Amino acid sequence: MYNIKLILEYDGTAYAGWQRQDNALTVQQMLEEAVHKVTGEQIRITGSGRTDSGVHARGQTAHFKTLVKIPADRFSFALNALLPRDIRVLHSEEVPLIFHARYSATGKRYRYEMLIHPHSTAIGYRYLWHLRPPLNVQAMKEACTHLPGTHDFAAFQASGAAVKTTVRTIRQAALIDHPPHLTFVIEGDGFLYNMVRIIVGTLVEIGRGKRSPESIQNIIISKDRNQAGPTAPPQGLFLDAVYYD
Amino acid sequence: MYNIKLILEYDGTAYAGWQRQDNALTVQQMLEEAVHKVTGEQIRITGSGRTDSGVHARGQTAHFKTLVKIPADRFSFALNALLPRDIRVLHSEEVPLIFHARYSATGKRYRYEMLIHPHSTAIGYRYLWHLRPPLNVQAMKEACTHLPGTHDFAAFQASGAAVKTTVRTIRQAALIDHPPHLTFVIEGDGFLYNMVRIIVGTLVEIGRGKRSPESIQNIIISKDRNQAGPTAPPQGLFLDAVYYD
Repeated sequence: MYNIKLILEYDGTAYAGWQRQDNALTVQQMLEEAVHKVTGEQIRITGSGRTDSGVHARGQTAHFKTLVKIPADRFSFALNALLPRDIRVLHSEEVPLIFHARYSATGKRYRYEMLIHPHSTAIGYRYLWHLRPPLNVQAMKEACTHLPGTHDFAAFQASGAAVKTTVRTIRQAALIDHPPHLTFVIEGDGFLYNMVRIIVGTLVEIGRGKRSPESIQNIIISKDRNQAGPTAPPQGLFLDAVYYD
Repeated sequence: MYNIKLILEYDGTAYAGWQRQDNALTVQQMLEEAVHKVTGEQIRITGSGRTDSGVHARGQTAHFKTLVKIPADRFSFALNALLPRDIRVLHSEEVPLIFHARYSATGKRYRYEMLIHPHSTAIGYRYLWHLRPPLNVQAMKEACTHLPGTHDFAAFQASGAAVKTTVRTIRQAALIDHPPHLTFVIEGDGFLYNMVRIIVGTLVEIGRGKRSPESIQNIIISKDRNQAGPTAPPQGLFLDAVYYD
């Protein structure tokens, strides 16, 4: 048996997210159908985690096990010939059988793209959140300094989600200001459901002057979803990379 | 009467080009319908020139004349509220009645985006031409040095086009290499029908080693469309800017 690791890029616009669903097109389903055509096997593909409807990925990682002996690097070409143009396999390789896209992951990096301008953009509007000025970017940058570290991020989790622990370690959180674009990059050992989008929604409220940069600390302490800001829309969010040892 | 100048951005994917047509959706039609809703007038919008089906614009320029007194800078907001998301008015201003988007133009800049990689990209595949390596970029850069100047570019015009003269002055032509992306930028006083796409198709044949960099000179001298390379696909082409004095 061979364990094949895939690095994936996708435009989430047309999909109901990563995870296979009845009655909705998902990235996982498209990949499983393509792998089935290549190998003839009924295969379940395991991703590093879900991405929501409309969320994009540049470095989603997945694995599947197959009995078919194909040089592993050929899978990327074979699958890309079958996949729609908004899903691409950037890399395929054989990995030890113990490798698991989700359980072996040691961290992830997300990116959230914003456009701060009186007008939105026609080219690439699918890939950002359009916000009208003014936005106090300095206050948002200051707020970011309160994110790194090991905290209970329960307040930044969509209500209704059930996980064993809501404690996560954020390694880096930065705002990159390249007007009229503004990019939020966050890296950590793992993320709760909707966590990045709720953080971005909260940062924008700080940029609007509705909250202080320091309020991030109080929101974390509260562990109360109602204390945080709204969930930013999906189309600005990219799963940039999944890290493994 | 007021003469209103618009600077436009659009994603050409969904449109049969700029120019109004029966039985096909065009950018001009969408704009004229939006202006009609704002002013109540039946207005013809004049662009700096046509763009083909699937070609994008970041700086298309147009004008229209209206009797309605609206502060000119408000047109951008009013039109954007009515236009689809893949067409945006970036700027609107009142200009002298003598201003004409086409006849007053002193030059244009186009950009053509390529991705040189074994795999295409899922994000933004609508905005580039995917080419597999190898491509001799140095040879392509050398070929570009033969483009600037005043030449008869008849060989780089789609057959069947009828214009008074096929002589054009190219001010700049450059390839910008930022792997895996490759950008061709060309600026001149005007361009023939399909000229930029035929130049790019020829440059790629030079990059593939099918032609020498110097062959550009012989193609120009021939004035024969059959001597030049194929027409590059539309989705990599952007009308970047239209210049006025």
